[in-house]
Amino acid sequence: MSETGARADLGVLGMGTMGANLALNFADNGGFTVALGNRTVEKSYGVRDSNPDLAPRLVPTDSIEHMIQTLKSPRVVVIMVNAGQPVDDQIALVLPHLDKGDILIDAGNADFNDTVRREAAVRPTGVHFVGMGVSGGEEGARHGPSIMVGGDRAVWERLKPLLEPISAKYEGVPCVDWLGEGGAGHFVKTLHNGIEYADMQMIAEVYGILRDGVGLKAGAIGDIFADWNTRGLSSYLVEITGVTLRETDPDTGQPMVDVIVDEAGQKGTGRWSVIEAQKLGIGATTLEAAVSARGVSSRRRERAEAARVFGDIALPGAQFHADRDGLGELESALECAKLIAYAQGYATLAEASREFGWNLPLGTIARIWRAGCIIRSAFLDDIAQAYEAGEVVNLLQAPSFRDRIEAGQANLRRVVAKAALAGLPVPALSAALSYFDDYRRARGTTNLTQAQRDLFGAHTFHRLDREGTFHHRWPQV
Amino acid sequence: MSETGARADLGVLGMGTMGANLALNFADNGGFTVALGNRTVEKSYGVRDSNPDLAPRLVPTDSIEHMIQTLKSPRVVVIMVNAGQPVDDQIALVLPHLDKGDILIDAGNADFNDTVRREAAVRPTGVHFVGMGVSGGEEGARHGPSIMVGGDRAVWERLKPLLEPISAKYEGVPCVDWLGEGGAGHFVKTLHNGIEYADMQMIAEVYGILRDGVGLKAGAIGDIFADWNTRGLSSYLVEITGVTLRETDPDTGQPMVDVIVDEAGQKGTGRWSVIEAQKLGIGATTLEAAVSARGVSSRRRERAEAARVFGDIALPGAQFHADRDGLGELESALECAKLIAYAQGYATLAEASREFGWNLPLGTIARIWRAGCIIRSAFLDDIAQAYEAGEVVNLLQAPSFRDRIEAGQANLRRVVAKAALAGLPVPALSAALSYFDDYRRARGTTNLTQAQRDLFGAHTFHRLDREGTFHHRWPQV
Repeated sequence: MSETGARADLGVLGMGTMGANLALNFADNGGFTVALGNRTVEKSYGVRDSNPDLAPRLVPTDSIEHMIQTLKSPRVVVIMVNAGQPVDDQIALVLPHLDKGDILIDAGNADFNDTVRREAAVRPTGVHFVGMGVSGGEEGARHGPSIMVGGDRAVWERLKPLLEPISAKYEGVPCVDWLGEGGAGHFVKTLHNGIEYADMQMIAEVYGILRDGVGLKAGAIGDIFADWNTRGLSSYLVEITGVTLRETDPDTGQPMVDVIVDEAGQKGTGRWSVIEAQKLGIGATTLEAAVSARGVSSRRRERAEAARVFGDIALPGAQFHADRDGLGELESALECAKLIAYAQGYATLAEASREFGWNLPLGTIARIWRAGCIIRSAFLDDIAQAYEAGEVVNLLQAPSFRDRIEAGQANLRRVVAKAALAGLPVPALSAALSYFDDYRRARGTTNLTQAQRDLFGAHTFHRLDREGTFHHRWPQV
Repeated sequence: MSETGARADLGVLGMGTMGANLALNFADNGGFTVALGNRTVEKSYGVRDSNPDLAPRLVPTDSIEHMIQTLKSPRVVVIMVNAGQPVDDQIALVLPHLDKGDILIDAGNADFNDTVRREAAVRPTGVHFVGMGVSGGEEGARHGPSIMVGGDRAVWERLKPLLEPISAKYEGVPCVDWLGEGGAGHFVKTLHNGIEYADMQMIAEVYGILRDGVGLKAGAIGDIFADWNTRGLSSYLVEITGVTLRETDPDTGQPMVDVIVDEAGQKGTGRWSVIEAQKLGIGATTLEAAVSARGVSSRRRERAEAARVFGDIALPGAQFHADRDGLGELESALECAKLIAYAQGYATLAEASREFGWNLPLGTIARIWRAGCIIRSAFLDDIAQAYEAGEVVNLLQAPSFRDRIEAGQANLRRVVAKAALAGLPVPALSAALSYFDDYRRARGTTNLTQAQRDLFGAHTFHRLDREGTFHHRWPQV
C-alpha cells in the first residue's frame, strides 16, 4: 500500500507536545496507524523520525487533503491545539473534507460553552463532533491519560476501542468513559482542573507554613511530603511536591524551587471552573481561592512594595513546629481541607448535571480520575465507593468522608488559627474551613441579610413560622 | 396644551417600584414633566393618582406610540425593568419609534457585556443608548440615588441637567457622573454591588459571632452596631444593621430577624461582579466569599442535615466576649476587613479600566458613592481623597489605608483565629486576611506551583537569577 493510501486508523492534528505524545500513544499502546498533521509540515516528519520504532505506524501528512486521503473511512480526526480560536480554525480547515458519519474530536481543553456551540455548528453536516477532556500532562498523553468523553453516546461506542487501549489503567480498569451529551466531557475536565488548582494551592500553603513558619529548607520539606505520600495524602500531586522540593539546580547547587520565580498564571480551565461554579450558584470557594492566589502571585512587584510598606506584622506566640505533633497536625489539616475542596468540586458537578440534564455518573468520574490524570490518587477510589454506596447529597455527608473530616477538622482549625496569627496566608485552607462551618450550620446569618435587603429594596423574605412571602415596614433611615 | 401634546421632558418605561420612584423623583426633585409607560397601562395611572401633588407633572400613557407623542424632541426614554430579556424586549418596542439624536437609557442593573452588545445594536439607528447604574434601593430612587453613567461623553452633557437634580447630594455635591464609554456605568454599578455583598457578608459574620459565639440577643447586637455606627464603621449598612436587629415583629413579639428564614439569593450583580473579577485575573476573594455564602445559605435543608451529622465540634478555649475589649476587637477587625474588601473592589475597577480602555475616574467613583447608594459612608470620602492625593497602585498601599490596616490587622487576626477554633464561619473575614497576607509577601509560594507545572506539563518557569524562560528535566515519577 502506498504512503498515501487510506490506511491510517485516525489522524491527529496539532504536533505540539500534547498532540505528538497522544499520537505516539495511539501508535504505541493502541497499535493504531496514525496520520500526523501540523501547520508546519516538518514537525510531523520530525515526530516520526525521532520515534523510529513506531515509525511504521506514523504517517506524516503534508496537507489536510493529504491527511484525509490517508484515513480509513469512516474517519476519525483528533484536534489537539490551543484552546479558543485555533480550535475553530482547525475545524474550519478540516470539516469541508469530512463526510457524514466521520468523527471530529477536540481533545484539548475547552470552555464547554464553546464545545456546545461547535457541536451545534457541526451537526448539520452529519459529522459527529466530540468534546473530549484529556488529563495527565505530557507523560499522561504519551503513556496513558485519563479521558473524559462527551458528545453523542452512540459515537462513544465507536470511540471506545480506540481510546481504551491508550488510556491510563487503575488496577486494570481503563480510565476513560463517556460522561454525558454535548459539552459534558469538557465540563468535567474543566472541574478536574479547578480541583487540581485547589489541591496545588493547599499544598503550596502548607509548603509556605513549613518554609516561613517553621523555617525549613526545601529539601527537608520535600522529605516531609514524601513521607505524607505514604499515607492518606498519597497522590501524584503530593508525590511530585516531594520530588520538586528535593531537586537541586545543576547550575547553582541551590534547591530548584529556590531559583524559580513565584508567579503563576491562571487563565483557562481554572478560571472557567470557578466562573461555571458561580453561574451554578455553588460556593466552590477553595477553587476560587486557588485561582485568585495565582492572580495575586502575578503582581510580584506590587507584593514586594507591600512587603516593604507593611514589614513583619505577625503576632507573637503563634508557632508552628516540625516535631511529630506539629507535622501530624499539618498533615491532618491538609487532608481535611482537601476532602472539602473535592466535595466542592463534586457539588459543582452535581449541580451542573441537574442544570444541563447530563445525568453525570459521579462515581465513574472518580473512577476515571484514579489514574492518568494530575489529581490521581487512591483517594478518588474512596469517592467512587461513596457514590456506589448510595445517594450522596454532598460528599461532606457521605459516611467515609464524614468520618475523615471529623478526625481532621480540629487540626484544620488549629492550622488556620495559627496561620492567621502568624501572618501566613492560607486562602484555600481557610476557605475550606469556613465553607465546612457554614455548611454544617442549621441556622445561618443570612436572615440578617434578608432583613437588610427588605429594608432597602423591598426584596421580601420568608418566615420560619408560616408559608408565604413577606415585606415588613421597617423604620426609615 | 392637550394631554397628548409633546410636553413631557422624558419618559420612564416600567412602573415597578424602582421605575415609579425614579419617575416621581424626576417630577418632584427635578420639576420635570414625566411620561409614564408600563405594559399594564393601569399601573401608570395608579402612580399618578396616588401622588396627587405631583400629578400635574405625571403623564400616564396608553401605549408606546402615545408616550412618543407625549415627549418633547429630542426625546429621552428611561427603561427601568428587570435585567435580561425584558430590557431587550423594551428596546425592541420603543426603538422603531425613536429618531436620530434621541436618547434611550437602560437604568436597571445589567451585565455590562449586554450593555456593550445593545449599544452596538442601537448605534446604527443614530439613537444614543446609555447604560446607567442607579443605586440606592427604593428610597434612593425616590429621593436621590447615586447614578453611574456610561455611554458617549457628549450624551452625558445633555443628561447632566436631568440627572443632577434627582441624584443624591453629599455636602451639596451631586452623586452622579459620567464614568466612561460604553458599558462603564453598568460595570461600575456591578462592582458597587459586589462590594455591597462583601460588606453585608462581613457584617453578617460578626453578627454570627455575637449571636452564636457570645450568645447575645438580637436587640443587644443591634445596640452594638448602632454604637459602631458613630465611629469609623459609620455607614448606611451598619446603620440599618442596628435598625433591623432592634426591630420587633408585631405578630410574635420576637425580634424580626429571629423569624426570618436564613436563605439569600445571589443571582445578578453579585455573581457578575465576581465573574468579571475572575476574567480580569483579580482575586476579589471577599466578594466571592460573600456571593458563595449566599449560595450555601440557599441549601437550607442540606445544612440542617449536616448540622445533625456533625453536631457541635468547636474546640474548647476559643472565646469571644462582649466586654469592652472584646467588642473593640470585633469592631476593629470588621473595619480592617472592610478596607481590604473595598481595596479588592477598587483593584477590579482599576484592572477593568486598563483592560477596556475606560480611564475610569476612581476618585470620582468614590465621591458619587458617598451618598445615595447602599454602601454610602464617610469612608468613601477617604477613598476619594486617597485617589486625589496621587497615584494609587492599590488602596492597601495608600497612606491612609495603610495606617488603618496596620492599626486593625492584629484584631482581624485574633477574630479569624478564634472563629476558626470556635467553629464559627468567617469566609469573608478570613478571605480578607489571607489576601492581605498574600499581597504583602514579597516571596510567595507559587514557585512550587511553577515547579510542579513544569514537571507535569513542561509549562516552563522564570528564574530569579537570570532572564528567560526555562524548562528543567525533573526526575520522572
